[in-house]
Formats: sequence, structure tokens, C-alpha cells
Amino acid sequence: MKWLPEWLRHYQRAWFAGDLTAGIIVTVMLIPQSLAYALLAGLPPEVGLYASILPIIAYALLGSSMTLAVGPVAVASLMTASALQPLAAAGSAEYVALAMQLSLLSGVMLLAFGALRLGFLAYFLSHPVISGFITGSAVLIAVGQIKHILGVKVAGSDVLDVLHGLATALPQTRPVTLVIGVASLLFLWAARRWMARALQHIGLGAKTADLLAKLAPMLAVIASTAVVGLLRLDQSAGVSVVGAVPQGLPQLSLPVPSMGTLGQLWLPALLISLVGFVESVSVAQSLALKRQQRIQPNRELLGLGAANMASAFSGGYPVTGGFARSVVNFAAGAQTPLAGVISAVLMAVVIAALTGWFFYLPHAVLAATIIIAVTSLIDLDTLRHAWHYDRADALALLATAAGVVVFGVEAGILLGVTLSLGTIVWRNTHPHIAVVGRLPGTQHFRNVERFQVETVPGLLAVRVDESLFFANATVVEDRIEALLARDATVRRVVLICSAINQIDATALGVLTQMERNLAARGIEFTLAEVKGPVMDRLRGTELGQRLHGKVFLSTHDAFMQPVPAPPRP
Amino acid sequence: MKWLPEWLRHYQRAWFAGDLTAGIIVTVMLIPQSLAYALLAGLPPEVGLYASILPIIAYALLGSSMTLAVGPVAVASLMTASALQPLAAAGSAEYVALAMQLSLLSGVMLLAFGALRLGFLAYFLSHPVISGFITGSAVLIAVGQIKHILGVKVAGSDVLDVLHGLATALPQTRPVTLVIGVASLLFLWAARRWMARALQHIGLGAKTADLLAKLAPMLAVIASTAVVGLLRLDQSAGVSVVGAVPQGLPQLSLPVPSMGTLGQLWLPALLISLVGFVESVSVAQSLALKRQQRIQPNRELLGLGAANMASAFSGGYPVTGGFARSVVNFAAGAQTPLAGVISAVLMAVVIAALTGWFFYLPHAVLAATIIIAVTSLIDLDTLRHAWHYDRADALALLATAAGVVVFGVEAGILLGVTLSLGTIVWRNTHPHIAVVGRLPGTQHFRNVERFQVETVPGLLAVRVDESLFFANATVVEDRIEALLARDATVRRVVLICSAINQIDATALGVLTQMERNLAARGIEFTLAEVKGPVMDRLRGTELGQRLHGKVFLSTHDAFMQPVPAPPRP
Repeated sequence: MKWLPEWLRHYQRAWFAGDLTAGIIVTVMLIPQSLAYALLAGLPPEVGLYASILPIIAYALLGSSMTLAVGPVAVASLMTASALQPLAAAGSAEYVALAMQLSLLSGVMLLAFGALRLGFLAYFLSHPVISGFITGSAVLIAVGQIKHILGVKVAGSDVLDVLHGLATALPQTRPVTLVIGVASLLFLWAARRWMARALQHIGLGAKTADLLAKLAPMLAVIASTAVVGLLRLDQSAGVSVVGAVPQGLPQLSLPVPSMGTLGQLWLPALLISLVGFVESVSVAQSLALKRQQRIQPNRELLGLGAANMASAFSGGYPVTGGFARSVVNFAAGAQTPLAGVISAVLMAVVIAALTGWFFYLPHAVLAATIIIAVTSLIDLDTLRHAWHYDRADALALLATAAGVVVFGVEAGILLGVTLSLGTIVWRNTHPHIAVVGRLPGTQHFRNVERFQVETVPGLLAVRVDESLFFANATVVEDRIEALLARDATVRRVVLICSAINQIDATALGVLTQMERNLAARGIEFTLAEVKGPVMDRLRGTELGQRLHGKVFLSTHDAFMQPVPAPPRP
Repeated sequence: MKWLPEWLRHYQRAWFAGDLTAGIIVTVMLIPQSLAYALLAGLPPEVGLYASILPIIAYALLGSSMTLAVGPVAVASLMTASALQPLAAAGSAEYVALAMQLSLLSGVMLLAFGALRLGFLAYFLSHPVISGFITGSAVLIAVGQIKHILGVKVAGSDVLDVLHGLATALPQTRPVTLVIGVASLLFLWAARRWMARALQHIGLGAKTADLLAKLAPMLAVIASTAVVGLLRLDQSAGVSVVGAVPQGLPQLSLPVPSMGTLGQLWLPALLISLVGFVESVSVAQSLALKRQQRIQPNRELLGLGAANMASAFSGGYPVTGGFARSVVNFAAGAQTPLAGVISAVLMAVVIAALTGWFFYLPHAVLAATIIIAVTSLIDLDTLRHAWHYDRADALALLATAAGVVVFGVEAGILLGVTLSLGTIVWRNTHPHIAVVGRLPGTQHFRNVERFQVETVPGLLAVRVDESLFFANATVVEDRIEALLARDATVRRVVLICSAINQIDATALGVLTQMERNLAARGIEFTLAEVKGPVMDRLRGTELGQRLHGKVFLSTHDAFMQPVPAPPRP
């Protein structure tokens, strides 16, 4: 039984009520969402349903979050469409096969990253970049759904093409479709704003009211399907409907891409994996913290990797942890991934027996569901805060959002990755370095630029507030040389190492070379406040030997020691 | 006259002797090297000569190093060959045109990076990764030249192909070519080991002897050309020779790539720019430091960018600052880039009048020059030091070198970039965090894991030794939550900010959320030792307001304040 996940081995009966309720409520959200996101990804509706069964169970076995709801999500669906549309006709058998292969590749990558313990990669994208990416994607998705509301056909992958296509196609708008679409939009929007309050008004508890309000999309689906089916609006008014969805559980298969396809899919698969992982971890993290639980990024990689493999094997497409459903799952009282397993079983029942019910479901209603869902992803708060607190962050957010809207979702995330990595590299190559002096009458030392401090003639005391490594070592050397160039009387340099926890091989090389150069010019290079572990490693090196007797315990000691006389000219 | 570079506006007569000597000696090195590196790049010999005139002058006007010798170099030549061989037949007119376009793209990129002040990118590649890349490239280059020593034809771009081809072609070895090649190899190798010493022995000064020893390749060129020409070994023994080199200065032209070519060349151009820039800066830096001069990475970008543009306009190919020639230039007494201008003028004279002299120069001698030159790039010292000091660095070096040899030069440098960035991201997402306590009877606070210190029940004092930003904020939160999960009695968390110089918007968001979560659980979140500038920015934020009265001046103050009572159960 050791291979079973911990939550299952120690399952407590008291948890079951919460898991069951959450499982049922999430299923009612999941049915319209999985159909809608398949539409968004350019896939037949059943693919969305297939992606909502085995992936959830695979995640339940390997993931670390108790409440993350895995399955089809908006951004990964958009990225799938963007990756596959250049390669095959949307909805074709080839397109479906490519979607499965994309999911397989993404699964393999996530599992490999998990095995290599690369979970720390979850943190390298800055929050503004993620926010900009999501906001840009939401705009792109919403714009792409307008055609379904109008009932017209529009091709084009970038936003200007689509807008131009919409303008041209406007006269072909189908009035009944438009009425259904706009009515759904208004209903879903009103439901989000007022339904919870209205339900509270008629006597329901706040939490129950909130949860029931989340079921509005299902209500819209049922009502519109009934109206269209009863009036046969698909035939009489040309309302585009989902149509026949194959009934029965998904066939298992092994979708192995050819070498050529591999070359075309690896980058999209990598980007989908990265974005899906980062999003999942941040949702799972924020939910876990509310109950003092922890999630483990490396386990998340394994869980999401297994989910994508399972999706690939069972006719699905790339999946990840979704924001909206996870929040509802948590609020509805899910205690363990059993809630997810319950909704997977319910989805299996739907697919095995009930797909006929979706025949008259209008595409316009699914589009309205998507539009309302993604507008909640547009995050102006982060932009406003960033604008006030750190203009550079706000610009990174805007650049990423604009990149997604103008150049598409892949170029947008690549821009975001570049901005984040660039920021990290910039930070690391601009370490904080201060020249320090002594606060009069104390043993405290402070930045000469910010405090009235005493200095000793011929002594240059420099404090570096970072560990030394390849990205900053040369910069530190540069700064020290620049300081020496300004003051020719310096005979001793003290490097204060109070914030240096590590010196890597490159930095060691730079320091060794600098010490030699300085010695040749009659300037003594010394260290102060070296931490124990750093000193231990230095001892065996050439630099350690050359610095013998030149390492001061405290900066104070370094200030008290007489400075060597200048060399004879 | 303000547009003239500073060294020229303030030129002193005393510098001229050094510049002239260095210019002449570098030219004598440059003639065989430029022919040899053109051969390595798969280009006709005149392209190497063209790349040794205008680029040097362009760099002299914009670069910041006084002694960097710009022109064709081994690694950039290898990268050019690797980029162009899939696109056109080596040596064809199309291939030459592509080389010029590659140089143009590289020049535009370098200038753009300079304008964007991205000079800090020089430091993001770790020294082991650079060393591994150079070593791997040197091996690849040397192996690729063996065919010229044997006088056989071998195709194939990866090292296994080439070795297999050599084994197959071995029976076709041309004996006279082999004798010339091996004799040159032995002579050049012996010259490098013993010539300087021998010259000192016959009474020359150490420095003069060292410099004259660098002219051995020219000696080999002259001797072998004379022998082959006099005996007509090209006809009688099938010795492959350089042949007719067009005489006359290069034509100026504007080589604009098509959109399709742009798509194929941008990545190689980017990688050549990056590698060339990093190499140039490190050579220029180490030479400048010996004379207490500084180089400016942003000006280097402009100088190298202009050099590559000039190379593109004048029939050349990608150039950068070379290691060996720069060292000789420095040692020969170059004081300013005038030394380079002098060698450019001398090269122009050679091209305008003397190319006929190269007709009988055997390819085997050029190959021997290349092999001896690149063996000095194989850097086992760095590997040995890294192995003893930091095993991870040694593995990065070996992986990059192996990547270059096995997968080629582009995949190798991409692997190196990934390893360096990965290391930086890993470091940034693993900040040093210590729980601290008080050294008994003092006001000093130290890591509880390394010192015998006192703690206060209910108080958790955590010191983070880095600025807080997006890559580490969540990790810090995670660690604090993990510490709280281990000790349920904690009622106050003190975050000691003595090493925090900055808190970015993401980290501010994480701290704000954490403070709210902790407050909801009855745990007080406080700060200590916040630096002035950090406090100034915090004041206007929600977190700043919520922390009002909870910011301690010193850790000592935080330890003296009574801890709040636990909330009623």
C-alpha cells in the first residue's frame, strides 16, 4: 500500500462530505468549461471531456496540492490552438492527433523536470510578467470568441486580422445567434455580480450563495439547449450548435510524434508546460497557505506531468491546474484529491451515457462562458500597484501583455521569459556595493554616502552585500579598481564579507587575479568578517595562502591596524 | 574634432614607437592567421584579409580597449562555418554573401545591445562555461584540420563523421603534403616551447625573444611557400595550395539579407555576437587591468558592432577581439588603437600589391598554424581548479565542452547559456536564510545552527541575506511557513532586513499576503533593521500601514519586546 498517496492511506471519514460536495459542484462547472475550452483550442467537444477524466486521477495520485482542480483551462487551450493551427486544419483528425502528441510531449517534459528537481523554475517568472501574460491572453481569447456570439466565420490568428475579419463579416451576423449570445453574456455577467447577493437575500448562507452563483454557466447551458432544441433553432435560424458528441469512454492509445512533428512541437510543448506549471503552483500555493498546508513544486511537476501523459493516452489535450475551478473546489470544502476523483467519475458517467444532451447546446453560449470566465483573468490591480510602487515592473507587465496581443501567445511568453531572465541577470550583475566608514565613537560601520562617518587615510573599506559568483565578481573588481583610480593614496583594500555566504570558482579566480595585480602595485588586499564556511573553503586555495595573516575578524580590527607605508617611488 | 576618439585627440608622440612596433608585429601574425581562419570558416583566403582592414579601424574609433586586436578569430570562424554550411556550398559566391550578411546581422545586434546598454550581459556566462566552450571548440577545430595535414577530402559536420571520414580516407593520404604538414606542426610546436629560450640564449632580451618567437608561423609560411613554389610541388606531388588570391582592395557593398535568410541567420548571428563579445571583454579586461586602465562593456559593444558592420560592408565575415594577437599587441608595446590602424594599413598594402606571394602557400601549413594556435586555447587548468574547488562548476565545464564536441558549436553554446542562466536562477531561488538567536550576554545575533545562542519562546527571528524580489520572495515565505509548521507556539515573526537593499513589487505582494495570513492566525509579523531607502518606499504601501509600530530599529529591540499572548482557543 506504500505506493498509494498519503492522503489516501490516511483518509478520514470526516473528510468525505466535503470531498463529495466539492466533487459534484466542480463537475457542474467542468461540463460547460471542458466543452468551451475544447472549442477555444479548435478541438471537437469530446476532447475537452476526455481531458477531464484520467488527468484528474493521475494528478490525484502524484500531485501535492489537496485542492488543485486539474483539467482543460483557458490559457493552455489558447496556446494549443496557437501551436497547432499552422500545422493542421482545426478539428481534423490530424489536429486531434497533434493535440494528443503535444500533451504527451508536455507530460514527458514536466516529468523530466520533476525528476531533475527543477521545481525552483516556478519562481523565475516575475509576478508582473505572469500577470501581463495572463491579461494579454485573456484579451486575445475574448476577442477570438466574438465570432461565435455573432454567428459568423472569421479566420486569422493575430488580433488585427481577427478584428478586421469581424468588421467585414458584421453584415452576415445571425440575429437569433446574436440574441442567444448577448443574453447569455448579460445573464452570466449579472449572475457574477448579483446572484450571490440575491441568493443571500432569499435566505441562503453566504458560502452556499457564493457556490450556487458559480453554477450559472450550467444554468445558461441547460436553458439555451432546451430553447434551441425545442424550437429547432439550429435548422430554422442557423444557430450553430455542438451537434453529435460521440458517446462512450475514450479509447486508450499511445500518440508518438514523428521526428518532424517533434521539431515543430517541442517549443510550444515547453512553453505550455512552463506556463501551466507556474500557474498551477501559484494557485495551489495560495490555496494551501489558507489551510497551513504546503505544496512541493517538484511534486507538482510530477503530478502535472502524469496528468498530461494520461490526457495524451486517453484522447485529450494539454491540461493544467485551473484558477476558477480550484477556488470553487476549495470553497466547496474539498479536503483531498478525492474530490477530483469524484468529479472524474461523474465526468466518465456523462461521457458514457449523456453526450446526447449537448446536441442542441449553442456555440454562442459556450463562447459567452469563455468570455465571462476570461474577463476575470484581466488583472488591472497588479498593474495599478506596480505602477505606483515600481515603474519598471509595470512596464514589464505592459510589454508582456502587448506582446501577447500583438505577436501572439508564444512570442508573448518568450518575451516575458526574456524580461524575467534579463531582470535577474541585471540584478545579479549590479550587486550592491558600499564604501564604509566608522560612526564616530562606535564600532559600527556604515555607507559613506548615507552617513557622517570617519575614514582612515590610505584605507579603502568596501562592503559587498551579495555572495560572490561569476555574474558579479568582475563587477566588484571593476568597482574596486574605479575607486582606486579616484584615490591614488590607497595602500590597503578591505573587502568586508559579512554578507558573503559563498564564493564560486569564477569569483575565486577573479579575486586571486585582483590580489596579485594589487600586490604588484604595492596595494594590500585584505578581508574582514569572513564567515566560517567561506573561510574553510578559502584555506586550501592559492588566494587563501596569499591572504594568510591578512584576514581581519572584524571591520573594527581592520580600521585599527596601521596602513602599510607607500612603496618607494 | 569632438567626434574623434579620446586617444586620438590626446595622442602623445612618446606613444608612437610602441604603437608602430606592435602594429608591425601584429601584422606579421595577422597575415597567416587571416588566411588560415578564412580556410577554417570555409571562405576564400581574400575574405580573411578583407576582414583585417576596415573592422580594425572601425573598432579603433568606437571601442574602449587600448590594446584589443580585432579581426578574424578561430572560434567565430568555426561558428561561421557551422552556421553557413547547411545553407550553401563552402567557398561559393552565395556562401561568401551569406558570411557578409551574418557579419551585418551580428554588427546590428551588437550596436543595438550597446545602444540599450546591455553590456552587463558580458558577465552572465560563468567562467567554467566559457572555458568549456572554448576548449570544446578548440578540439572541434583541431580535428577538422587534420584532413588538410593528410591532404585528403573529408565532409561531415560533427566530430564522429569527421573522424570516420578520416579513417576511410587514410589510404589516400598524400605523402608530400603529410611531410609538409607534420614538419610545420613540429616546427611551430618546437618554436612555441623553445624558440624564446633559444633566442635569449643567443643574447636577445627576454621580451624581444618572446615577441620574435610569435613570428614562427610567418617563418613557416615563407619557408614552405618557397619550397613548394621552387619545386612546383603543387603539380608534381599534388600539394594543395592557396592559389590565386584576387589582388586589390575590397569593394564596398551593402549585403542586406532577405527575410528568409534572416530567419536562418538570426540565431547564429546572436550566438556569434554573444560569444565574440564575452571573449573580447574578458581579453580586453585582463590586459587593461595590467596597466590600471578600464574598459567599458557598453563601449565594447559599440566598437565590436561597428567592426562587424565594417567587415560586412567590405567583403569580410564576423570578427571579434582575438586572444593571441591582443596579448602580442600588448606585449609589443601598443599604447593606443593606432597600433591596430597601422596593421590595417599594412594589411591594405599586402592586399593591394602582394597577394601573388600566397599562391604556393600550402593549405597544410595553414592547418598546422590553426592546430597549434587552438591547442593553446585548450584550458585544463580551469578544469583542474574547478574540480578541486567546486565540483558543480567542473561538471558545467565538462558538459559544455562535451556539448560542443558532440552536438556542435551552436548547441554547445546554447547548452552553456542554459547552464549559466539555470545556475543564476537556482541561486536566486535558493536565498540564504538563517534563524538567529542572541549570543549570551551580547547584542550580537547569529545563526542558531552554527552558534550556541539564546532564543525567546514564541519569537521566530529570521534573517534573509538577499534583497527580496520575485525569484526568492515565495521561497522566503515557504521557509517561514515551514518553520511555523514545526513550532506551533510562535506568536511573532521578526524578519531581519539588514541585508535587504530592495523589495520589488512581487516580493511586496508576497509579504503583504503573508502578513495578512499570519495576522488571521494570530501571529504578528514584524521587521527589524530595515534600511532607510527600503523603509521610505514601504511607507506608502498597504503593508507599510499595516506594519505601523511593528518595525524594530534593531534585532535586539525585537528580542526585548514582550511577545503577544497566544489567542484564546
